[in-house]
Amino acid sequence: MSGESDAAGRRGLSRRGLLGLAAGGGAAALALAGAGGFALGSRGARSDEAADVHPFFGAHQSGIVTAVQEHLHFAAFDMMPRSDRDDLIELLQDWSYASARMTQGLEVSATGAVGGPAEAPPDDTGEALGLKAAALTITIGFGPTLFENDDGDRYGIRDRRPARLERLPAFVGDDLDPAQSDGDLCIQVCADDPQVAVHAIRNLSRIAFGRAKLRWSQLGFGRTSRTSAAQQTPRNLFGFKDGTANILADDAAALAEHVWVGEGDGPDWLAGGSYLVARRIAMLIETWDRVRLSEQQRIFGRDKGEGAPLSGGAESDAPVLARLDAHSHVRLAHHDGNNGIRILRRGFNYVGGNNELGRLDAGLFFLSYQRDPAQFVTLQRALSTDLLNEYIRHVGSGIWAVPPGAQQGSFVGAGLFD
Amino acid sequence: MSGESDAAGRRGLSRRGLLGLAAGGGAAALALAGAGGFALGSRGARSDEAADVHPFFGAHQSGIVTAVQEHLHFAAFDMMPRSDRDDLIELLQDWSYASARMTQGLEVSATGAVGGPAEAPPDDTGEALGLKAAALTITIGFGPTLFENDDGDRYGIRDRRPARLERLPAFVGDDLDPAQSDGDLCIQVCADDPQVAVHAIRNLSRIAFGRAKLRWSQLGFGRTSRTSAAQQTPRNLFGFKDGTANILADDAAALAEHVWVGEGDGPDWLAGGSYLVARRIAMLIETWDRVRLSEQQRIFGRDKGEGAPLSGGAESDAPVLARLDAHSHVRLAHHDGNNGIRILRRGFNYVGGNNELGRLDAGLFFLSYQRDPAQFVTLQRALSTDLLNEYIRHVGSGIWAVPPGAQQGSFVGAGLFD
Repeated sequence: MSGESDAAGRRGLSRRGLLGLAAGGGAAALALAGAGGFALGSRGARSDEAADVHPFFGAHQSGIVTAVQEHLHFAAFDMMPRSDRDDLIELLQDWSYASARMTQGLEVSATGAVGGPAEAPPDDTGEALGLKAAALTITIGFGPTLFENDDGDRYGIRDRRPARLERLPAFVGDDLDPAQSDGDLCIQVCADDPQVAVHAIRNLSRIAFGRAKLRWSQLGFGRTSRTSAAQQTPRNLFGFKDGTANILADDAAALAEHVWVGEGDGPDWLAGGSYLVARRIAMLIETWDRVRLSEQQRIFGRDKGEGAPLSGGAESDAPVLARLDAHSHVRLAHHDGNNGIRILRRGFNYVGGNNELGRLDAGLFFLSYQRDPAQFVTLQRALSTDLLNEYIRHVGSGIWAVPPGAQQGSFVGAGLFD
Repeated sequence: MSGESDAAGRRGLSRRGLLGLAAGGGAAALALAGAGGFALGSRGARSDEAADVHPFFGAHQSGIVTAVQEHLHFAAFDMMPRSDRDDLIELLQDWSYASARMTQGLEVSATGAVGGPAEAPPDDTGEALGLKAAALTITIGFGPTLFENDDGDRYGIRDRRPARLERLPAFVGDDLDPAQSDGDLCIQVCADDPQVAVHAIRNLSRIAFGRAKLRWSQLGFGRTSRTSAAQQTPRNLFGFKDGTANILADDAAALAEHVWVGEGDGPDWLAGGSYLVARRIAMLIETWDRVRLSEQQRIFGRDKGEGAPLSGGAESDAPVLARLDAHSHVRLAHHDGNNGIRILRRGFNYVGGNNELGRLDAGLFFLSYQRDPAQFVTLQRALSTDLLNEYIRHVGSGIWAVPPGAQQGSFVGAGLFD
């Protein structure tokens, strides 16, 4: 490998990472690592707008409080059989290296899609050449099974598992598909350009070759939450504004209380991180669309047009819970009725096509970050009598511990292996 | 119904269309029609940018030469059993009415999502409230089975079927899924906001209630063609620029020669229209990604970085076909090697998730408009020895006659029933 380190803080992808990119390409692949430097690796159209580029390194991973982007590609991975601790470390190093580059609008490696030897498969798949960084964020998490599964303590990290990181309990009405749930690792990719998001998951999957395998993935569009007061409250596919009461990125006190794992909360390596819950919530669109407006509003507890609580006032006014239907969504979910428990929501709408009856395969890919999974569990249990449940089905689920951000020159999750 | 006509040129949705919106809502639905006027129906955030709003009425349907938008939701429909000619006419009237409104950034009807009686289901599903028109175009086509199928001449239009409108012949390597192919009707929705595109298909499906049913649908992002010189040539999921030699919207002579059905070409009702071919082309992403750069370039016949022909010059230079591999994609597809035959391409990339092996379910949703389906058939046959075929599978297919644009106050396809 080249002796130079680059802006991603490492000398480049590992030999294994390069082999993943070049799988099938043979020995020529190894020559790729020597090119070094950024000249060939730039996608050639880096944005001049700072808001379009988010830092990869920092105290927290980006993609949590970052202003929610327009598109999501989420992927869960399982480690390969017989992979060992070194494989896992190297994979996280490689993912961090490539992610640091891609989030800056660069190709996955210095030689990229066209700068390597013609006789090797390109490092970068190329479909994002010429596109901007598009506010890309890449956020990596560790599932309970990474620490221990039926094969035992594969990576020597069992005793570093956060006690709070365990598979979510069953909830009333769960109809989960195991093939669309869980995973040793997860990567949440958000961007304002779907091609940039897809490019990131695709290339990180390639890099994982031989070490981890894509288990399931989910695309989304149309954020259903906001993390910045500058963002309009978006609408879910039932046509209602959602996430009005979300925690905002500039509310440091609320983030410290509800989102970031604190110094004394659990293992030190997770301080500054968070817990991510994902729920794939199918929406029975055609059924909902036949419900009269007054009933739709009663179910949500909000007015459909403005999003104002039915108890009166404007969208941003706090609802008077006692004046809403006892089983309305807002009444059951609101922090005022749940001992002040709040979570940071970051979900996206999805439409996957339609089933054989012509009904839309559509819903909400719910994502939330919290300091303790118990926050989500408490709120989800409170929703067990939600009127909305007649119109939704939870069909996928997962939980991951999301480490703090990596320092320049290090990698996401490094503290787990100290 | 109200005596006033509105900007969409009709008095409103038909009683059947309103029943579709209100299915399950009972008699209250009928009251919706009387509200009239646009005040309540506006989504409230119409764009000030003219480029963001395309006309629905005109000589040609929009969405053909319109600068290609960022997102696609395409849907094929089958007419319901026992539907009759009046049902079909009324459906096309309702679709035209609602489409004219939505493309202007308005709700599907004057009363929309929140302006109707509280005791009825809303006309509009509401998820696009507050969003701009987002360059929405809605383009409607008629499949061969609309004119005649196993049930015969259901709508009294058999003798008006264009002789050229017939199911595409089988091509070498076809692996078509009938459930993802064909359809009595199609609607191509393009927009720069995916939520706006999804909203349009969803509401047009609702309006079709009892008359037509969604057969299959396809979402896409990342256009793979351009119809304006101002648009950069986009990249497909193999990382190559695609559509460099596409017909551009300002090339009136080429459009007249290759895209628009002429006065003497076929039935009069189709003059000013076109034929639309759709092909769902799955891409074997992981296999492709292991192919060396030189081979990838040989297969396409273009340089991956700039998109220049391998025969030399810049992207926009015409390739010297004899200097490319005899089975390269460009050599086989280029009009210079096909008696000057050209088509207007309007495809989109898609990613639907992944299969159980962790491989991406991804590819190209190919759309092309042509004056005569024979243009597509000739070009597709020329590709029978395309080197690219090792890496792609045609898994869906359809063809539709796309009528000319409707005049204000009329509806798409009116000429078919004269």
